[in-house]
Amino acid sequence: MPRPPFRGIVVPALTPFGADLAPDAERFIAFCRNLLAEGADGLAVFGTTSEANSMSAEERMELLDRLIGAGIPADKLMPGTGACSITEAARLSAHAVSRGCGGVLLLPPFYYKEPSEDGLYAFVAAVIEAVGSADLSVYLYHIPPVARVGYPVGVVERLLRDFPETIRGLKDSSGDWASISGWIKHFPDLAVFPGSEIYLLDALRLGAAGCISATGNIDAAGMKRVWAARDDAPLAEALQARTTALRKAVQAFPMIPALKRIIARRTGDAGWVTLRPPLQALDDARAAALFAAIDAVEPAAVPA
Amino acid sequence: MPRPPFRGIVVPALTPFGADLAPDAERFIAFCRNLLAEGADGLAVFGTTSEANSMSAEERMELLDRLIGAGIPADKLMPGTGACSITEAARLSAHAVSRGCGGVLLLPPFYYKEPSEDGLYAFVAAVIEAVGSADLSVYLYHIPPVARVGYPVGVVERLLRDFPETIRGLKDSSGDWASISGWIKHFPDLAVFPGSEIYLLDALRLGAAGCISATGNIDAAGMKRVWAARDDAPLAEALQARTTALRKAVQAFPMIPALKRIIARRTGDAGWVTLRPPLQALDDARAAALFAAIDAVEPAAVPA
Repeated sequence: MPRPPFRGIVVPALTPFGADLAPDAERFIAFCRNLLAEGADGLAVFGTTSEANSMSAEERMELLDRLIGAGIPADKLMPGTGACSITEAARLSAHAVSRGCGGVLLLPPFYYKEPSEDGLYAFVAAVIEAVGSADLSVYLYHIPPVARVGYPVGVVERLLRDFPETIRGLKDSSGDWASISGWIKHFPDLAVFPGSEIYLLDALRLGAAGCISATGNIDAAGMKRVWAARDDAPLAEALQARTTALRKAVQAFPMIPALKRIIARRTGDAGWVTLRPPLQALDDARAAALFAAIDAVEPAAVPA
Repeated sequence: MPRPPFRGIVVPALTPFGADLAPDAERFIAFCRNLLAEGADGLAVFGTTSEANSMSAEERMELLDRLIGAGIPADKLMPGTGACSITEAARLSAHAVSRGCGGVLLLPPFYYKEPSEDGLYAFVAAVIEAVGSADLSVYLYHIPPVARVGYPVGVVERLLRDFPETIRGLKDSSGDWASISGWIKHFPDLAVFPGSEIYLLDALRLGAAGCISATGNIDAAGMKRVWAARDDAPLAEALQARTTALRKAVQAFPMIPALKRIIARRTGDAGWVTLRPPLQALDDARAAALFAAIDAVEPAAVPA
């Protein structure tokens, strides 16, 4: 019996690092607990926003174990388990399944560019077969602006045909409405999540499952209000306009450093500004401009 | 006392996989031994051609241990140790140093695109500091067509200034002569290796250290003849013309599948055609076209 798919507001949770650049599990647990308390329906830990690819497989698995050990419900977790190798993607995915995670978010292999459709299909099929569990729910992670390798429609069709109980959804972080709406219309059985809440209401009206958005780290509650009001057009549109304005203010800055600066301000914990290289913290001048921009949208949106 | 830098013909050795897609250590050892016997001066195992990023860190370390355990001299090995995370790049690099490898070939972190120069510098510096060994010799791996992240000149300048005993060389796989010749002229203290033997003689005349080329897997001896004749203009140019023609015949096909097909033909071992997804083997029709193309260059160049 397949698990129910994720629905609603899923947050690709930021990963806090200490001054020594080691992941800070205690801070991470507290942060994830708070996101769920604010209304997040799921946590896509170890996504792009989480700097997952700046961590080793071991670091990711240990953080996941710490989260679950601390009582974060595994069925609300959709860890990113993508890697350039079948070996690592399968190992991370099998680990997530063994811990009861609700799903995994799977990048395509992203080192070799312009892979063939046969090659992409074979990669994902090999990962699924290596995990070999009916409890595996895969959400395909389509993010061409960063990975530079995406999932072609033909590959998704083949995967859905051959693994209909396993391929459950897709996150589209293309930033392109034609792409997002295309997945929703073409794959009614997939839980499709735009990677930005700018498209949330429009996507829900077409049949999307929700959204998985970086800015959920600072505004899960605001996105959840759009979700809750989705059948009440005037209210939903007003809430959508607000959340869109906040997103646009943030995305004028480098997204991950900006979010970490905002969390540092909100929590009063300056350690949150740390990123793993190659990513770098926003400097104070840009942080001041960021804070001015988000405060101009709505002072109460992101508590100082 | 720093090690002498690599010089001459360095081959990014292909990695053989079994039908189960596991690396085949015995075949790999025999292949590497043969490359050295044919005249290769060094082996850049676990490069792009080696499908290194299609293997886990553990698989790469185990293969390296097997090679050295079988008597391949560690000082002739320049394993690729790049990864998207400092954690893994440092772990792989420390392992290579602990085994006495002559150097490591270090990709920049390649997931996040358009990283800042500060961020790239910080990544490499953190890897060098984590290894913390005077025995570490780093060769920077500049391959923008695949990694989509390269090493800017400003980053290399800073690294050389701060780690002059560690940063020893650079491989340029841009395929762009302006880029290759730029590194050679701008960094006389770096051992610069073009990533294609097409540029071998021209680069040697400017002061390059040799080349690190995928096609060395099938023609190390031919490249070595160019190297040996480099001060004898008419002979060197004739040998260069031959090796250039062979390279051009091969690179009209997908490089890694083409090389594996040629090795399978040469050795009579059909298992060599296997690649890890997302890469895929050449089909028989394309393989026939490939063989016709290389045989037209020189029937004896690649023994059937």
